[in-house]
Amino acid sequence: MRTNSQTFQETLSIYQELITRELKIFFEKEIQIAAAISPHAKLMVERLQEFTLRGGKRIRPILVIIGFQTCNSDVPLDKILPVAISMELMQSFFLIHDDIIDEDILRRGKIAFHQFYATNNTYCNARHNVHFGESMGIVGGDIAAFLGTKLITESNFSQETRLAALKLFQEEVVKTCWGEMLDVLASQQKFSEQELTQILDLKTAGYSFETPLQLGRILAKKSSEEKDTLVHNVSIHLGRAFQLHDDILSIFGTEETIGKSIGNDIKEGKRTLLLLKTLENASKEQQVFIEHCLGKNNIQLEDVLRIREIMRTTGALDHIQTRAHQEQLVAKELIKNSKFLPEAKEFLTELAEYVVDRKS
Amino acid sequence: MRTNSQTFQETLSIYQELITRELKIFFEKEIQIAAAISPHAKLMVERLQEFTLRGGKRIRPILVIIGFQTCNSDVPLDKILPVAISMELMQSFFLIHDDIIDEDILRRGKIAFHQFYATNNTYCNARHNVHFGESMGIVGGDIAAFLGTKLITESNFSQETRLAALKLFQEEVVKTCWGEMLDVLASQQKFSEQELTQILDLKTAGYSFETPLQLGRILAKKSSEEKDTLVHNVSIHLGRAFQLHDDILSIFGTEETIGKSIGNDIKEGKRTLLLLKTLENASKEQQVFIEHCLGKNNIQLEDVLRIREIMRTTGALDHIQTRAHQEQLVAKELIKNSKFLPEAKEFLTELAEYVVDRKS
Repeated sequence: MRTNSQTFQETLSIYQELITRELKIFFEKEIQIAAAISPHAKLMVERLQEFTLRGGKRIRPILVIIGFQTCNSDVPLDKILPVAISMELMQSFFLIHDDIIDEDILRRGKIAFHQFYATNNTYCNARHNVHFGESMGIVGGDIAAFLGTKLITESNFSQETRLAALKLFQEEVVKTCWGEMLDVLASQQKFSEQELTQILDLKTAGYSFETPLQLGRILAKKSSEEKDTLVHNVSIHLGRAFQLHDDILSIFGTEETIGKSIGNDIKEGKRTLLLLKTLENASKEQQVFIEHCLGKNNIQLEDVLRIREIMRTTGALDHIQTRAHQEQLVAKELIKNSKFLPEAKEFLTELAEYVVDRKS
Repeated sequence: MRTNSQTFQETLSIYQELITRELKIFFEKEIQIAAAISPHAKLMVERLQEFTLRGGKRIRPILVIIGFQTCNSDVPLDKILPVAISMELMQSFFLIHDDIIDEDILRRGKIAFHQFYATNNTYCNARHNVHFGESMGIVGGDIAAFLGTKLITESNFSQETRLAALKLFQEEVVKTCWGEMLDVLASQQKFSEQELTQILDLKTAGYSFETPLQLGRILAKKSSEEKDTLVHNVSIHLGRAFQLHDDILSIFGTEETIGKSIGNDIKEGKRTLLLLKTLENASKEQQVFIEHCLGKNNIQLEDVLRIREIMRTTGALDHIQTRAHQEQLVAKELIKNSKFLPEAKEFLTELAEYVVDRKS
């Protein structure tokens, strides 16, 4: 599938195309099934399809393929695609519920899932529109989660493989939910650096890196229920690098590149490691100003610009960028010394570069 | 386990005790696991335990036992209990999300799951308490759902049986979610009698009757992935009888007996079959009054009393009671002519009586 001359971006787009095609096949089938129940069910699966297919880099299903390629396997790639895309359903489930929780309006540059229902006049009377949208989003997320497990249950793998994959899926959901719960609390309470790092490990490293890679290995029949420690460690460091960079992007990125409103993390009062470091380094006056902005619904662009400036001048931005690079280096070192097959090694190394260099 | 002289209530309480004990064992284990993650995770599993164990009749896990008893099986009862209780986790998942959607404050006579977080001062600042509670409830419900699947994945049954049970579980979740989604829409749009009946079939008959019974049969190894049509039909009619009676209870019951606030269905603007019939039979003036009350947040007791009176005098109450009894009769006839084993037949017949006679 890959030659050495292919660049990382080329590889990504080849796999992205495969994944997108597979997702479309799946959703077309599910739309038919839902249409038999009700036109409203059909519309919701269509919305799930649009939400899942819009933007997004398909990193997680691609990592299933890469995890599969870490080992020698005679299973054909075609066979693993329907299971690989279950990761995108899990992702849609998390994002839909997360956007309700964070009261986000935009996702991937377009309207958040629940906001479609909240703002659709044919669907709701004006009185309750926010709550109506959230209600539809709660149910839509629940459905996405269990359509994800369906992809595994109904796949062509042996009973043993399917059960191992389902177990991995459900454990990951519970783990990510703990991360999400702690994240919700982190906007209400002051958490330590250690606690914030734990959230990041629970909420990002698992479902973004470790679980897709382990799933690929399960499908290659090289791992049964026993998880690989090396994959775990690589994922933890990739996940931290990714999330630290993400926290920077969400303050310093433009609405265009990140697909979310500027200053969202501030508005939500999200206490990221970047924010923690900034508060630690800031003057009393700067601290008061930042605390005043946190959780403020009508935060102005000039407030965000001033916070950016504080993050720069206090050295907090530098500090977090350095930490992201350190995590990236650890991940790269682990990958280099691993016994993964060469093409998986190459991709993961390039991915490690990508997670801290990306603009979106 | 049962003798002919045992009354239905005695049988219920014997099984309730077994189920409750099993739930406690499960939750104690999960509390330990969560405690290793964070004291907040531990607290949430404790809340899930309290929520799941409070009140509740354990009808669904008991129906797993009864489904199991519809066939001759040499599997010991002890072995099926850990899987039977997965139905209570599914139930908690639905109730937690449903209470957020319906903005309910009470459940089973106590505070709703998300309300615990919304009103707990050590946990949240006052500013966002409602949304904070809902956020914690969304995550708590998600966790309950996947702890439910975990009970199946980690049970002692063969891979084939566990996969069949997981498939049943996930299909039921998706089906019930469609019912829930249509139910949300039914408070925004005018639905026909046929559409309301479909909601009832999707939202109640499946997870309350059919899925527990089919799960029991899967565990008895008498049914693989193929569902039994008779069990389906019995469940549809039991489900309708149950829900029609439930709609009556939620208007005519007291807060004490139903464990929810009086007039909740009115406040939520829920368009039940009872309400549809009432509007159909009511005078223009009565219709205007009822429509005015629907979805009204601060509905007064006297408004509810007047609506009760309209439901009585227009004959709508009688009509729905009769329909509930008709559904019950169909269910009983199907059970009578079935080839289920005698003790399962007896229990299901008594259950059919119970669903339309109960006070709570």
